[in-house]
Amino acid sequence: MERLPGFRDFYPEPVPANEPWSCDLRNHIFAKWRETARRYGFREYDGPPLEPLELYTNKSGAEIVGQLFNFVDKGERAVSLRPEMTPTVARMVATSERAYKKPIKWFSFPQLFRYEKQQKGRLREHFQLNCDIFGESDPSADAEMVALLIDVLRALGLTPEEFVIRLSSRQAWQRFFAARGGDPARAYEFYQVVDKIERERPEVSAEKLAALGVKLEEVQAFITASVPEPELQAVLNNLAARGLGDFVAVDYGVIRGLAYYTGIVFEAFDRKGEFRAIAGGGRYDQLVKQVSEGKVDLPALGFGMGDVVLAELLKARKLVPSFASTIDVVVLVEDESLRSNSLRLVQQVRETGRAVDYSLTPAKGDKQFKRALELGAAHTVRLELGAEGVVVAKVKNLKTREERIVPPEEVIAAL
Amino acid sequence: MERLPGFRDFYPEPVPANEPWSCDLRNHIFAKWRETARRYGFREYDGPPLEPLELYTNKSGAEIVGQLFNFVDKGERAVSLRPEMTPTVARMVATSERAYKKPIKWFSFPQLFRYEKQQKGRLREHFQLNCDIFGESDPSADAEMVALLIDVLRALGLTPEEFVIRLSSRQAWQRFFAARGGDPARAYEFYQVVDKIERERPEVSAEKLAALGVKLEEVQAFITASVPEPELQAVLNNLAARGLGDFVAVDYGVIRGLAYYTGIVFEAFDRKGEFRAIAGGGRYDQLVKQVSEGKVDLPALGFGMGDVVLAELLKARKLVPSFASTIDVVVLVEDESLRSNSLRLVQQVRETGRAVDYSLTPAKGDKQFKRALELGAAHTVRLELGAEGVVVAKVKNLKTREERIVPPEEVIAAL
Repeated sequence: MERLPGFRDFYPEPVPANEPWSCDLRNHIFAKWRETARRYGFREYDGPPLEPLELYTNKSGAEIVGQLFNFVDKGERAVSLRPEMTPTVARMVATSERAYKKPIKWFSFPQLFRYEKQQKGRLREHFQLNCDIFGESDPSADAEMVALLIDVLRALGLTPEEFVIRLSSRQAWQRFFAARGGDPARAYEFYQVVDKIERERPEVSAEKLAALGVKLEEVQAFITASVPEPELQAVLNNLAARGLGDFVAVDYGVIRGLAYYTGIVFEAFDRKGEFRAIAGGGRYDQLVKQVSEGKVDLPALGFGMGDVVLAELLKARKLVPSFASTIDVVVLVEDESLRSNSLRLVQQVRETGRAVDYSLTPAKGDKQFKRALELGAAHTVRLELGAEGVVVAKVKNLKTREERIVPPEEVIAAL
Repeated sequence: MERLPGFRDFYPEPVPANEPWSCDLRNHIFAKWRETARRYGFREYDGPPLEPLELYTNKSGAEIVGQLFNFVDKGERAVSLRPEMTPTVARMVATSERAYKKPIKWFSFPQLFRYEKQQKGRLREHFQLNCDIFGESDPSADAEMVALLIDVLRALGLTPEEFVIRLSSRQAWQRFFAARGGDPARAYEFYQVVDKIERERPEVSAEKLAALGVKLEEVQAFITASVPEPELQAVLNNLAARGLGDFVAVDYGVIRGLAYYTGIVFEAFDRKGEFRAIAGGGRYDQLVKQVSEGKVDLPALGFGMGDVVLAELLKARKLVPSFASTIDVVVLVEDESLRSNSLRLVQQVRETGRAVDYSLTPAKGDKQFKRALELGAAHTVRLELGAEGVVVAKVKNLKTREERIVPPEEVIAAL
């Protein structure tokens, strides 16, 4: 019985040779995500992995269904495994925003699902950090969001030599398009052509742009000039004040594929250009209004960062920590007549918060000791019957190999 | 747009009045689960939330489908959202056990799904801590498992006055049934009748038992006597050696509903009997062999503990901690000409690991200070232009209300 194609098992380290996904690495990433968001005053939320299908079709149109992991449930409801978190959080905020002071700063790292045609190695699920701010239209919120993104990557050990955040603006492109007489109803179509310029043959882009009344050369010149419009300049100044200027660059080639962005947009890239975007986000001031059918109107912005590209990048840059040592103390049971005393000791040491292992069944002393070394334990402790039947404890520091003999009740103090 | 029935949103504290599920409480439970499992030397794993339907029908028969959240995916695969974790972990262990030293001690806390007929307030998903040991048939492993279960509940603040683990044995019941000439092929049918005795009218149980050749009075007498069979006695002795004897009691009324248990079984209950079982588990020595179609044969045992009953119990026993204080430092920006300096300070304090908040846009000083109090911050810091244009920092301890004036570069030392 195998798992489904496109899904991952996460094994404990050291992972089996043919199973590349480590639960320890995943949790390392999760811990850094959570810890950095917390430093920024973001609060954690979560929503259901399954949502009504309309939550996605309302926002992105019926054509999105081709990429969704959707089905009809036993109650005849059209439902979908969540392909992204933004509609869920917009729904939650629209429902309950009155209970919270503004701006609302929230994060989550849901598992997301897409049913795309199966390609070799292409995954159908991933985990994605989502950070969002609701209720603040000032560019200071955009700067706070980009700073958080930078610090999440820094917390994982990445430096300004290794990654850059490329900043752009949907509004700048909107003005560009309007200035050339573009039809506002076709603006999103225009953004999608710009989004693909780097990947498409120039003739193809030029033809599509011509149909929209825009010259390819003008678009290219706009991208190359990269003159920050005022809002973008405010974000750059804000980040420079924090000392984070080295991590950002203006790049109008970034425009983001999703329909709902309305203002500043950004993507994080590795500087060597070996990987797809590490993260992306932007401002989406209309989405809460749309999801709440006009009842709640809150400006909003956010970003998403998936675990897959990130894990690949950390591996390539040798930034995956060692997960070898998970046990603090191994209690060696060499004298089976002292197993009950040893179990009591195991319990006492665990109650101090330490991770303790021991052999559940009788085993040779040297085998138990070898296992303690493999587990990366800091100490071994073994009980022995000393002179006149008094039980003593031998506490060994596995780094220095020093051994101390103490009464059993003093073991914890000797660790 | 509402969420699907039976699914939960998890809001940050303080949660809105009509939204009972708190992400902070959920994460508090997750943290205690993880931390306790770690102390016991258990390693974390995870698997896909969606699995081939056969993984469940092979183990539990086709009748399980009535309770599953199953569907046919776009690739015509019969799939199901996972209703329990044991088949997944058995699959993972069967695939990769050679990469790991035995016994394998693993844990996970997956979200699980059931599609039962909708009843008021009945959930279709929950999170469940799963702890399992593979590769050890000795009762010492059963004792280790029960000790872990006890310590998970203790880590959440529960005492022996508040909960008890009821221990039983499928083998004892098997011998009971065999001694009365029961048909081995109908043993599971017999267990299911015993499982329901407390909930069913005596006439109903008596009739069902009679059809299996057993008298209700004999079953009741066996439950009441609760004489530990040797394996169970070994577990009791082991737990007593650890000082955990007060947390357990033999109760043959516990037999567990699932088909795959083969040895000792147990459930955790609140002593007042207000809630359903808090956790349950047991030994299932045949499952890995079954899932691997005979290729891998490993004895196994484990337990599951859901988050729903647990959260209700913690609330009822007033064991939910306060989640009020999430911010360490609030930087007050009272002089907008010093906003850049303030942003730099925010960044520096965050880089020490502290959670820092500040007003993204200009706001009155007293409003900012009031917000700092609401956020439960330990300190406020504000920059001021002092004599001769020198910037100074005022660091206020919000507990003592003491304020110190220091150069900006000494703020961190003053916190």
